[in-house]
Amino acid sequence: MKKFINTVEDFLDESLRGFAKAHADIVDFSPEPRFVSRKAPAKAGKVALVSGGGSGHEPLHTGFVGLGMLDAACPGQVFTSPTPDQMLAAAQAVDHGGGILFIVKNYAGDVMNFEIAAEMLDIPHDSLLVHDDVSLPENRGMGRRGIAGTTMVEKIVGAAAEAGYDLAACKALGERVVHATASMGVALTSCTVPALGKPMFELGEGEMEMGVGIHGERGRERMALGSASEIVDYIAAVIDEELKPQAGQPVLLHVNGFGGTPLIELHLIYEQAHRHWSERSLDIARSLVGNFTTSLDMAGCSLTLTLLDEEMLRLWDAPVHTAALRWGC
Amino acid sequence: MKKFINTVEDFLDESLRGFAKAHADIVDFSPEPRFVSRKAPAKAGKVALVSGGGSGHEPLHTGFVGLGMLDAACPGQVFTSPTPDQMLAAAQAVDHGGGILFIVKNYAGDVMNFEIAAEMLDIPHDSLLVHDDVSLPENRGMGRRGIAGTTMVEKIVGAAAEAGYDLAACKALGERVVHATASMGVALTSCTVPALGKPMFELGEGEMEMGVGIHGERGRERMALGSASEIVDYIAAVIDEELKPQAGQPVLLHVNGFGGTPLIELHLIYEQAHRHWSERSLDIARSLVGNFTTSLDMAGCSLTLTLLDEEMLRLWDAPVHTAALRWGC
Repeated sequence: MKKFINTVEDFLDESLRGFAKAHADIVDFSPEPRFVSRKAPAKAGKVALVSGGGSGHEPLHTGFVGLGMLDAACPGQVFTSPTPDQMLAAAQAVDHGGGILFIVKNYAGDVMNFEIAAEMLDIPHDSLLVHDDVSLPENRGMGRRGIAGTTMVEKIVGAAAEAGYDLAACKALGERVVHATASMGVALTSCTVPALGKPMFELGEGEMEMGVGIHGERGRERMALGSASEIVDYIAAVIDEELKPQAGQPVLLHVNGFGGTPLIELHLIYEQAHRHWSERSLDIARSLVGNFTTSLDMAGCSLTLTLLDEEMLRLWDAPVHTAALRWGC
Repeated sequence: MKKFINTVEDFLDESLRGFAKAHADIVDFSPEPRFVSRKAPAKAGKVALVSGGGSGHEPLHTGFVGLGMLDAACPGQVFTSPTPDQMLAAAQAVDHGGGILFIVKNYAGDVMNFEIAAEMLDIPHDSLLVHDDVSLPENRGMGRRGIAGTTMVEKIVGAAAEAGYDLAACKALGERVVHATASMGVALTSCTVPALGKPMFELGEGEMEMGVGIHGERGRERMALGSASEIVDYIAAVIDEELKPQAGQPVLLHVNGFGGTPLIELHLIYEQAHRHWSERSLDIARSLVGNFTTSLDMAGCSLTLTLLDEEMLRLWDAPVHTAALRWGC
């Protein structure tokens, strides 16, 4: 295992402490139980957004804590759900009187633990489930996984909460964004979980894992490694089948790297995706290219398309000041 | 070779076109000869900063084009100097009447080609050489290489040019920043140049390349893979020996990833570096953690320390709006 690490036991906390020190102007870090919360003051009555999940997907979610996005994030161990006490402590710490909206990626452990925390919480609250991964059918197992589209949900709903939307309006908007968002990824290599010390799965030199999850879960199929344009056309066709975008539709196009793929390749993928959807006369109104929902050191990427309406576009453009996304301030 | 690519021939241009489309609000892209220029209008008489170098280090330099930083960047082929016609065309395109400052990383091809362009240029101009890599002695070969400290130089001098500093003042400030900056890197893996199709060098499972350059050049020594804290202490000692920072000195601490190392590890490295320099009573006034000066898909990182004075700190904090760095606007 070739990683920057001291011990497996200290890996997460050392990284979180470094994150908190590097962004001490934006976040506070509570080590016990672990959560990251925003430093920017919030108006009384603002809905507080609390998210979280297993670590290894940085900057998601800790890098999205701050003005205009999340109020708190609860990092679990690598690829492991955070515990209810983290969520409960985070929610109590960032309550501004407008209630708590939990934003939960659809994984069994996360869903269960956020439910337990919600039951214990003595503050008005609701939950929003993100399930944007269209690589598998909707009716399979516990449903679709939440992946890179989570960034769109957290940004747009975060701006709404900052603008004074109430809890029900934040949740309704979030469900609209989830419904309008579809993602799918592809892995060129496995990732290596520190505690395991070796790749989670093996991929041959000429193979790729199409529809992979952000924990290295198997997806649609293992395929022969394709060209960038073949890969994009394959993924985009699945997204098109799901969202059925009409010509002229304004969209947000997100190319997300899995942590081991550099920008030079992600921009090449963006060029292919831009071609695909321009040919179908979509209005690519906004874009986001970079490593945002990662899978440790995995080489690979995902495409996310969000069908925008005017409200979503305005909220996407609203000021945000987090470690990973910043504009307008 | 596991990369997102169509053909070796089109790799760079497809990536640049994608970059330009994803950031069409910030940059224009000239395909022939290749350069990226800022869209934001500049005041008449503003010094124009033009940089460039081989591709494969993204977001450097194209991601640093925009308000408060570079006026133009000239990307060469992967790990290959851009040509004088690119630099000449870029300089002519972004001339605002205040002269041109070429910012050049110290590599033989870059230095030679920027010199040729400068000789052909019929506009007042000067050049600033960046040579922040302290892994090798100053008097060796053509001197030290320019690596991740280039970001500090381009940001601080970019803010000065935006604020109305003249050509001589921009150059003098830039030399002061170069003098106050020291960097050193370590590779855990090689990178793979598309045209070569295989790793540039081999590193065993238990080895690392200490003092590596951003093109995979050998550095100080090949060593047994150390813990994160051992690696940081080794690099930091070399930087301390060079800069000899005094207790209480305000510094900017930059942890830079080489493209294949995810944020979770870079933040862990930052924690170690913060510990090292806090123990020596430095004032870590600003920080930057992420993949900024990359080496394609190499796993590894570098540390950069810049000794700040009040002027540099003010210019670092000034508004910047580029693809890779944005704050204050």
